[in-house]
Amino acid sequence: MSEGDPARPVVVVAHRGPVSFVDVDGDREMRRGAGGLVTALRGLRGYLEDGVWVCAALSDADRAAVADSGDKPFEVDGGYRVRMVALDPDEHHRFYAIIANPILWFIQHYLWDLSNAPDITGNEIEAFEHGYVPINRAIGEAAAEEVERAGGRALVMIHDYHFYLVGPEIRRRCPDALVHHFIHIPWPQPDAWRVLPGWMRRRLIEGLLACDIVAFHTERFARNFVLTCRELLDLRVDMDSLTVDVGDRTVAARWYPISIDAADLEEQASGQEVDLEERRIENGRREFLILRVDRTDLSKNILRGFKAFDQLLDDHPELSGRVSFLALLQPSRQDVDEYVEYVERIRRLVADINLKHGNPEWQPISLQMGDALPRAMAAYRQYDVLVVNSVFDGMNLVAKEGVLLNRRNGVLVLSEHTGVHEELGAFALTVHPFDIQALADAMYAAIAMPQDERRTRLNACAAVVRGNDLAKWLRVQLDDLAVVEAGRAELNRSEVRSP
Amino acid sequence: MSEGDPARPVVVVAHRGPVSFVDVDGDREMRRGAGGLVTALRGLRGYLEDGVWVCAALSDADRAAVADSGDKPFEVDGGYRVRMVALDPDEHHRFYAIIANPILWFIQHYLWDLSNAPDITGNEIEAFEHGYVPINRAIGEAAAEEVERAGGRALVMIHDYHFYLVGPEIRRRCPDALVHHFIHIPWPQPDAWRVLPGWMRRRLIEGLLACDIVAFHTERFARNFVLTCRELLDLRVDMDSLTVDVGDRTVAARWYPISIDAADLEEQASGQEVDLEERRIENGRREFLILRVDRTDLSKNILRGFKAFDQLLDDHPELSGRVSFLALLQPSRQDVDEYVEYVERIRRLVADINLKHGNPEWQPISLQMGDALPRAMAAYRQYDVLVVNSVFDGMNLVAKEGVLLNRRNGVLVLSEHTGVHEELGAFALTVHPFDIQALADAMYAAIAMPQDERRTRLNACAAVVRGNDLAKWLRVQLDDLAVVEAGRAELNRSEVRSP
Repeated sequence: MSEGDPARPVVVVAHRGPVSFVDVDGDREMRRGAGGLVTALRGLRGYLEDGVWVCAALSDADRAAVADSGDKPFEVDGGYRVRMVALDPDEHHRFYAIIANPILWFIQHYLWDLSNAPDITGNEIEAFEHGYVPINRAIGEAAAEEVERAGGRALVMIHDYHFYLVGPEIRRRCPDALVHHFIHIPWPQPDAWRVLPGWMRRRLIEGLLACDIVAFHTERFARNFVLTCRELLDLRVDMDSLTVDVGDRTVAARWYPISIDAADLEEQASGQEVDLEERRIENGRREFLILRVDRTDLSKNILRGFKAFDQLLDDHPELSGRVSFLALLQPSRQDVDEYVEYVERIRRLVADINLKHGNPEWQPISLQMGDALPRAMAAYRQYDVLVVNSVFDGMNLVAKEGVLLNRRNGVLVLSEHTGVHEELGAFALTVHPFDIQALADAMYAAIAMPQDERRTRLNACAAVVRGNDLAKWLRVQLDDLAVVEAGRAELNRSEVRSP
Repeated sequence: MSEGDPARPVVVVAHRGPVSFVDVDGDREMRRGAGGLVTALRGLRGYLEDGVWVCAALSDADRAAVADSGDKPFEVDGGYRVRMVALDPDEHHRFYAIIANPILWFIQHYLWDLSNAPDITGNEIEAFEHGYVPINRAIGEAAAEEVERAGGRALVMIHDYHFYLVGPEIRRRCPDALVHHFIHIPWPQPDAWRVLPGWMRRRLIEGLLACDIVAFHTERFARNFVLTCRELLDLRVDMDSLTVDVGDRTVAARWYPISIDAADLEEQASGQEVDLEERRIENGRREFLILRVDRTDLSKNILRGFKAFDQLLDDHPELSGRVSFLALLQPSRQDVDEYVEYVERIRRLVADINLKHGNPEWQPISLQMGDALPRAMAAYRQYDVLVVNSVFDGMNLVAKEGVLLNRRNGVLVLSEHTGVHEELGAFALTVHPFDIQALADAMYAAIAMPQDERRTRLNACAAVVRGNDLAKWLRVQLDDLAVVEAGRAELNRSEVRSP
């Protein structure tokens, strides 16, 4: 498996697929999928000619397409195939709305308010045993079938926190497969996992240890994973090489900061719709535009961002009428109580701040809820300050997209607790996500910064993003897998030679 | 400094003192203090003849006594002295009600609901710089004066999270002192400290590193401390010896599970008042009595305890009218919003459960708020099941007191996340604090357990508590300090010998 030419066919496993189906006037049409992971994995296209992408059938149209195809993969543009798996809707609901989000997501982002939540009751145990487990088994079996169809020696690339139990299915049925699991959210320190009963956390972590490589966005997450194996499973680990011994196997924790497809993004941003949106923003804007673009996720730290803006206006009355804060928020997980409450709190806080500082001519904060990609790209071009202040964040691609598209020497204000901070921190204004005064000060510093310094910083950020592109992200992973592969071949030879 | 005979005079530093003053009809009287730490440190009496206990003057009467004495220590029963320090009330409020509780307490017990709190604003920064810092300086200066008065070579034993910045004051003014800091609450994993801005967390941790030994109740906390020094301060550490290199010094993290003074407790429990309370409980009790005794602290997991009891009554209708849950709760920190809300939630939940399961003859839960030590000791004698299900807990002395006084072969149901679990876990029914079904099942298992098994378990618990007594707790610490002392003497000799 050398650079750019994997000797093994690739089987990608991810919850969302690269395509989905819609019914249009009684006809079924295939549409290109959305979402950060789908975009990122699009970089895999070049490697997928011989491969297949295994994903969940999420809509009725998806399920109908699966039924019609008899579980066979679909051919899609780009020459690869998509294997959608029809899942039991009740099991999928438990898997998705009780275990994956919120339990695993909250644990991995340190979001639980532990004196009040979560309660592990019969409901959660059932959701695990009759939701997360069978969904993982169904996806794992489909993936194993695809590996077998490819001759048993595939490279399996499993993605994210939905599928921690897929590895063991592959390992059991396809011992010759190379198994790689990429986790796109933070891996917390071991104590965070103590929220789960011992048997449940052990099962999840042992699931990951069925893989050859467990991959993250940052070294810190990889270290935390190895620490977790030592502390919670009492396994022998090496904190220098970041490996875990499991029986006679060695599992490696690695880190590969994901990126974006710059050419793809620029192409998307080149449409007329984006220009139209940009003109609208340009016509409505004041001297300084502060921007945030986020899902309404508890990890994004949206409330403290507005509180800091309130503080900025308190500290600098001369900015009244001259600055506005545009928040493009995409409602997220509105089937989870905490998320509904969060949106409520956001709306109330924005109303309070607008009432306190605004006037008939000027509303300091413009809160726009929705999912308008062209507007987001137009806003990326127009911002003077981009605020990414997540409490904790695996990577954060908003920062990377923003610096690539911006046309006003905009300054990135960036939380030290994001994965992207390792790449862009040197050229951003670093903030501590809980320190509201520091965030207000950083917003002011960004506004007050001379244009040439702003330009230097923006150009440096954009250069980093272009340099660490998706192709590189993937290549480094494939190189590491080749090393694992070589180690394994070595092992097989020595086994053959032994008397 | 050999066993039981420290060559160095001892200076204890703790927020509360072993005595306090009250005004009675215009006369000032000295009273013996209360609180877990005061009780524990009473074991130091034998070592304090030559020593002094430095503490804050907390009441008006305390402050008046300090003013009258001109900052001189008071002689108290037991032949040792108490140096009370009069502190600026505003500074003390910021120190205590904003920084120590809740910020440090919440961080160290993983209690922050991070998407909502805390906000680090000008208020918190001021509370640190003009509260925690000057209070630590004032206490540190008083302690240093006492060390100097004792000839400069004292053993300084600093206690708990109030005084992380006292060590540097001692180190600076009294380089020949041996400095020991005991932390009675959990030490969390490094990420928990990321709630504080970098400069603030660094200052706190560096403060502790001015000591020779930093001590905890469990090995896990000591490990977490060393990990914190490596991750957040980038210091060289040894995870096997649990030491941290700071310049040319080595700081050791150690663990010494604290205990109770069995004789003292039994003496307190021998009074008539306790017998009276016990008769009251005995007359009112049903077949099975489940007990909890706690401050209303968010770490104690009181809500989930009641939810599990609700589940128990759902699962076992045959227990209706035969079991009751007595909760003796001491209101705590009612100047902190989160604590006020917590008490409200507790009251509402108890009312709901009593309404759901109770009847005119039988209220399943008896919630008693107050601070009645005799009643607690009477209840310890009478319980069939003692519930200690803390979310996270440094040690938890309720478990130790309960097993020592119980007279009904009561079963301890114990959270795996308490410090005391390392000593008593083998003889308790271990529960996972978030798993409500498991806690309900454990309550049932305790009730259903045969008397001889109950007896064996209780006796084993009591034997452990008697064996690991306060004298042993202290002796092991002094032995370790003697080793540090010897190492230091070695160093001094080699310095003298060097050319």
